[in-house]
Amino acid sequence: MTESVVPARIVDVAALAGVSAGTASKALNGTGQLRAETRERVRRAAEQLGFTPDPIGRGLSSGRSYTVGLITTDSFGRFSIPILLGAENALGAGEMSVLLCDSRDDPLREQHYLRTLLARRVDGIIVTGRRTESRPPIAIPDHVPVVHAFTPSQDPADTSLTIDQAGGATAAVAHVLDLGRRRVAHVTGPEDHHAAQVRRAAAEAAAGDALVGPSLHGDWSERWGRLAADLLLRRHPDLDAVTCGSDQIARGICDGLRDAGRRVPEDVAVVGFDDWDVIALASRPPLTTVNLGLEALGRRAGELLLGAVAGHPSPGTTTMPTRLVVRQSSVPA
Amino acid sequence: MTESVVPARIVDVAALAGVSAGTASKALNGTGQLRAETRERVRRAAEQLGFTPDPIGRGLSSGRSYTVGLITTDSFGRFSIPILLGAENALGAGEMSVLLCDSRDDPLREQHYLRTLLARRVDGIIVTGRRTESRPPIAIPDHVPVVHAFTPSQDPADTSLTIDQAGGATAAVAHVLDLGRRRVAHVTGPEDHHAAQVRRAAAEAAAGDALVGPSLHGDWSERWGRLAADLLLRRHPDLDAVTCGSDQIARGICDGLRDAGRRVPEDVAVVGFDDWDVIALASRPPLTTVNLGLEALGRRAGELLLGAVAGHPSPGTTTMPTRLVVRQSSVPA
Repeated sequence: MTESVVPARIVDVAALAGVSAGTASKALNGTGQLRAETRERVRRAAEQLGFTPDPIGRGLSSGRSYTVGLITTDSFGRFSIPILLGAENALGAGEMSVLLCDSRDDPLREQHYLRTLLARRVDGIIVTGRRTESRPPIAIPDHVPVVHAFTPSQDPADTSLTIDQAGGATAAVAHVLDLGRRRVAHVTGPEDHHAAQVRRAAAEAAAGDALVGPSLHGDWSERWGRLAADLLLRRHPDLDAVTCGSDQIARGICDGLRDAGRRVPEDVAVVGFDDWDVIALASRPPLTTVNLGLEALGRRAGELLLGAVAGHPSPGTTTMPTRLVVRQSSVPA
Repeated sequence: MTESVVPARIVDVAALAGVSAGTASKALNGTGQLRAETRERVRRAAEQLGFTPDPIGRGLSSGRSYTVGLITTDSFGRFSIPILLGAENALGAGEMSVLLCDSRDDPLREQHYLRTLLARRVDGIIVTGRRTESRPPIAIPDHVPVVHAFTPSQDPADTSLTIDQAGGATAAVAHVLDLGRRRVAHVTGPEDHHAAQVRRAAAEAAAGDALVGPSLHGDWSERWGRLAADLLLRRHPDLDAVTCGSDQIARGICDGLRDAGRRVPEDVAVVGFDDWDVIALASRPPLTTVNLGLEALGRRAGELLLGAVAGHPSPGTTTMPTRLVVRQSSVPA
């Protein structure tokens, strides 16, 4: 019936169906709120003209191109970036368009960003941050998929991914006990940080009788680690292992112990937390530590977002495993 | 005749007219330098779709919403992220949508990403990387604005932003000479890295007679810094200042000098390069160093991209200033 020298365009389909090009596009992509009758009329017109969607249309309709909003309090630092790269791997490298929103812990700023993301019609939103305490759910319409990654939602019905910090801290202590150490200390970050609390509780439970005393809280810095090493040696000169709440603290502990004439790991084994390569590998000696698996977490976040976009949400909180990485701060080279 | 439940968007108009959203916006607003034929095609497309500028369209036409491709070899690490944040500041926080493309130094992968970015009709592309040597221009149609940031293009007609590494290295040496130091060494990264070459040449020229000997090349690590401190003290026991090609090397130098019983800065002043806070602030003592001004560079990249999108390209290479930051590794607290 028809002869096309050039392929049919969406406008041709629209003209034949008696609708706008935008409506025709939505009808063919199964998006928008159209009457079934309209959708059917457009589909018949497309069939009649032998219309095939263009590459962008195909990418969108086959679910290969996504625009994702990333809301973070981490200014795209060491936690957000690995999660972002992991999500991108799940969604297709170079196929995911990201709207970066650094809320800086400001609820008003976050509200502004959410309005922007909705106006830009994002396919989904990943909410993350630099802390592990749960946060209030974000206020957006139900039809926009949201995955909370690293920083979970307070609403158990939301989709959240957390890391197994307790498991990591337990593995760290079990490792030094396996090495025969029996005078174990734990040094960590601020007392009011969830990460410090969870890691401390697990470490103390795992150490049991081997614990030399209550854990020490300070900030997440190398300086605090050096100070803590000095404190520990005064109180417990027979100390033979220290597990830490972060790699920065552990690196400071190593430096402080060496300054005091102790050998790491021969006299005292030290274990960090995070496996932040810049710190863990430059430490003297390189740190045995707990890898957070942030890229795997990001990948899972991307997969859960894909599922939700396709109509299969995954409510609930999933705890992702952490992994002990053994280096010379606990086992001599 | 037409039925639109949801209004047509500027991107629909752009897609129908076969131009970028930025071009469509300019055509409808009568701004930019477009061919009359293009303007007319966009106007017809808008009419066909019954397009009325919605809030998003208004955002675009007032220059507030952009999709930018970021091609990097830096895996979104310490160089790319500050540049990205700076660009976002220029383009409007939360208003810039970014397509992240990590080319991993692979030309084939880069070609794939460029095709993706063109198919996604980005408003512009920022090309960056972790090294400062110039790179071949990217192969894309003339109408897509490109800004090379940190890693300049080999084509002098392209828009490139570089940092004043020579100025930074000169300022570092001038600083230790001002402090009265007269036995100065320079320790840097691999001999075949542009950053090491440029910083070395400027440091040696600035030191003149005060230079103790040829500069030392190694890798960009703390370990190399510790090793170099040992080497330097054997060859030049009367050394009183070391300027370095990076903060990691400088931190290693500080540790190596302290291990050998030298006081920093009383006996030997040490200056780093990069002002990478994780390293520079944790160093003992904290490092005097050269701040790269990456956020300012990113902001300028965003501004140049905005200008080019609006029809005002800025061909040529602009060198952005670096800045000496004085801390306790050169001046006692």
